[in-house]
Amino acid sequence: MTHHSPGPPSARRRVASFLYRVPVSAPDHLLPQPVRVGLLGCGNVGAAWLAIVDGDVEAIAARTGIRLDIVKVAVRRPERARPPDVDPERLAARLTTDAASVVNDPRVEIVVELIGGIEPARSLVLAALAAGKPVVTGNKELIAACGAELLAAAEAAGVDLLFEASVAGAIPLVRLLKESLAGERIVRLTGIVNGTTNYMLTRMSEEGLGYAEALAEAQALGFAEADPTADVEGFDAAAKAAILAGIAFDADVVAGDVHREGITAVGASDIEFAHRLGYEVKLLAVAERTEEAGRSETADNDPVSVRVHPAMVPREHPLASVRGSFNAVFVEGDAAGELMVYGRGAGGRPTASAVLGDVIEAAHHVREGTRARSAMRRAPSLRPITELRTQYYLSIDVTDRPGVLAAVASVFGEHHVSIRSMEQVGLAAVGEARLVFITHTALEADLQATIADLALLDPVERIGCVLRVIGPEPSAS
Amino acid sequence: MTHHSPGPPSARRRVASFLYRVPVSAPDHLLPQPVRVGLLGCGNVGAAWLAIVDGDVEAIAARTGIRLDIVKVAVRRPERARPPDVDPERLAARLTTDAASVVNDPRVEIVVELIGGIEPARSLVLAALAAGKPVVTGNKELIAACGAELLAAAEAAGVDLLFEASVAGAIPLVRLLKESLAGERIVRLTGIVNGTTNYMLTRMSEEGLGYAEALAEAQALGFAEADPTADVEGFDAAAKAAILAGIAFDADVVAGDVHREGITAVGASDIEFAHRLGYEVKLLAVAERTEEAGRSETADNDPVSVRVHPAMVPREHPLASVRGSFNAVFVEGDAAGELMVYGRGAGGRPTASAVLGDVIEAAHHVREGTRARSAMRRAPSLRPITELRTQYYLSIDVTDRPGVLAAVASVFGEHHVSIRSMEQVGLAAVGEARLVFITHTALEADLQATIADLALLDPVERIGCVLRVIGPEPSAS
Repeated sequence: MTHHSPGPPSARRRVASFLYRVPVSAPDHLLPQPVRVGLLGCGNVGAAWLAIVDGDVEAIAARTGIRLDIVKVAVRRPERARPPDVDPERLAARLTTDAASVVNDPRVEIVVELIGGIEPARSLVLAALAAGKPVVTGNKELIAACGAELLAAAEAAGVDLLFEASVAGAIPLVRLLKESLAGERIVRLTGIVNGTTNYMLTRMSEEGLGYAEALAEAQALGFAEADPTADVEGFDAAAKAAILAGIAFDADVVAGDVHREGITAVGASDIEFAHRLGYEVKLLAVAERTEEAGRSETADNDPVSVRVHPAMVPREHPLASVRGSFNAVFVEGDAAGELMVYGRGAGGRPTASAVLGDVIEAAHHVREGTRARSAMRRAPSLRPITELRTQYYLSIDVTDRPGVLAAVASVFGEHHVSIRSMEQVGLAAVGEARLVFITHTALEADLQATIADLALLDPVERIGCVLRVIGPEPSAS
Repeated sequence: MTHHSPGPPSARRRVASFLYRVPVSAPDHLLPQPVRVGLLGCGNVGAAWLAIVDGDVEAIAARTGIRLDIVKVAVRRPERARPPDVDPERLAARLTTDAASVVNDPRVEIVVELIGGIEPARSLVLAALAAGKPVVTGNKELIAACGAELLAAAEAAGVDLLFEASVAGAIPLVRLLKESLAGERIVRLTGIVNGTTNYMLTRMSEEGLGYAEALAEAQALGFAEADPTADVEGFDAAAKAAILAGIAFDADVVAGDVHREGITAVGASDIEFAHRLGYEVKLLAVAERTEEAGRSETADNDPVSVRVHPAMVPREHPLASVRGSFNAVFVEGDAAGELMVYGRGAGGRPTASAVLGDVIEAAHHVREGTRARSAMRRAPSLRPITELRTQYYLSIDVTDRPGVLAAVASVFGEHHVSIRSMEQVGLAAVGEARLVFITHTALEADLQATIADLALLDPVERIGCVLRVIGPEPSAS
């Protein structure tokens, strides 16, 4: 037995559970045995987590009774420069390019997966679980694509799979929904889960920037990638929406199931109009249980609607004040009412903080021989977007000539979409005008049919931005 | 053994842990054995919790694997009317006026204490813990006064004492701080934890009401008591601040340790001035670890400052948009950065939702033979308010005559309190004026000395509202 061997598990656990209550001022030989962790990936989050644990191991032990020891770190490019708070010598002593050797190392009791992407992450996580090792992951793509498979593997192996860091960074959604709201019937989650687009929309709202200016600024500041597609087209938010739906409804929803619209059609004039009516424009990820007539008491398998789209949010709504790159998720429950959690949705240290919370929980479970409770996921019935009923904002550029408004309005009427308010704004180009509409609550299928027919009208130059409008309809005044 | 006896614990637990994984569509005889709960108190929260559990027992079992059975309910006045969603016949069959008989009932595995107040709640909770029964409580007064004693009793007995519902209703603070942020160094909690005063301040801010009008409206709506002292003088918020400090810092802080100022001196003109400078006025509960020079890595016993006072909050701060009777707690951690949780801080069903989350956790622990991790509380070093350093807002009514401003300003100067901005506003009374000041960051002791000396100045009629100003000092423009 080498110095690092954890010893026979049964003996070790008995000792550790005795030592767990010893105060931290005790001499070193009385401190809890370390829990040995293998780290896969040392990028932004991995390096931040390594630096926090290495730098704070005694303080973390004092707070939690768990002394962590990161014994092995797998990276793809060992030569890559790491942040200054990662000690290069201590890292070098633990570095390997063979990720499987971390999973298989007999000293490793918990595997932390921060590689990102689906493969090889998926195979490594499955191998760790099959070997009876709990896994903590911050991998959004992996959970959004393979969450149900991995949870089933964890269940079969009887060990933890914890993924708080995979959605909305430091914001504690999994624990909120699975523990604080255990037993609660969750009705709807509405989240601002993409920091890049929220930064852009905040700048457009507060400084009057146009879409292109806001994007250029976000790129200059490093908030947006050179190819911003994943953010501005809503792919990132859709993956997170899938994870939210999975947590809230134990539903096997994958990113591809999510109806997705981005913010590329949102312009300064749309936000200006929203302001005039008392709204902010936000990119929302929504996961909701849809009301079915005559639901029975145990009808937790109501159809689920999961979607990402820009929306008009009333200024008094807590989500309207989520500014800059912050994220927030608004939760509606049957008994709890309205809750919101707000925080840093990305970034090395905040995400590493969520990883740390999960690793501490997994370490307690290793010590106690228990595990987190998890629910198996079922294939949900997904409600198509065409069945959504909400209010809509719609902007249409037309040739400014007599009779246009009547023609446009009659298309709405033909499809039973009732108009709550309409405004005509001038455009720079001579002879063109922009018509902006807010509808009463309507069926999405009817709105889509309206848009399709509007596009066929001769004077319609362009169908612009479509926004769903959140909140109750204002009463007529 | 009667039909209701839970049977020998070891046998029962083995069966239950097997049954836990059975899907809910299984026939009745395969469903998990109920976990039997005794309820103390059937007031607003108790009745709501009873109605939720009685009405939703199958759905809760489906979601959590735990089937709850409330076998006995202790009330002081059995004749009192209960809300319509409580079935009177089912309640009557379980009702008793002998609370001790609930605690001692051999069927009762978990005790839920929703009586409120210190005695007899304290004795009943201690008796339940001593009998090895986990306790879930929503009792703010009890936890704020006796939290450390009760946690020590739970630790000695090796069972859970869970109290998520005792502070900020449905908002999941205990789990956030103890689990999601396990290992994290918490720097500061800043909370809006009293719904009545936040409702009043919201009305004053949005409708321009004066203090007396806002109070009368809150009383008419049932948000404020006929005697509003506990709310408007900050006693309720101080008890919650003590609980927050206990959770965040494992510190044995009681309500009486908390520096407390209410909102009775806040007037419409103070809020108007705050608006002009870009602030909202909020009653804040603050628990913070104070920075000590040269703290070591394990220095988690830095002095703690715990206080309740009205404050000016920058409009962009997430707490500024918490409106009406909602509550929120803003958390600052070393790695996680800024987090906020927002929700219903009071009310029967939201608070009952927090009770349910705790009862489900305790029930899982009963089934598994484990318990929640809890930290012993230490006596903290409390930093006196006089050592606080912040910016201040101060309003002073003076006789309007030449030289007054110079006299007032020189008192600030004598005490090294530097003025950032000053404004003179006219008053209705002829010959009087109101001077409003914002200071640069100053020491509280110096500000108090300034106020004491100002009160001695002949032309000073009245020292009005004192508000601490939250956030960084704006840079000079």
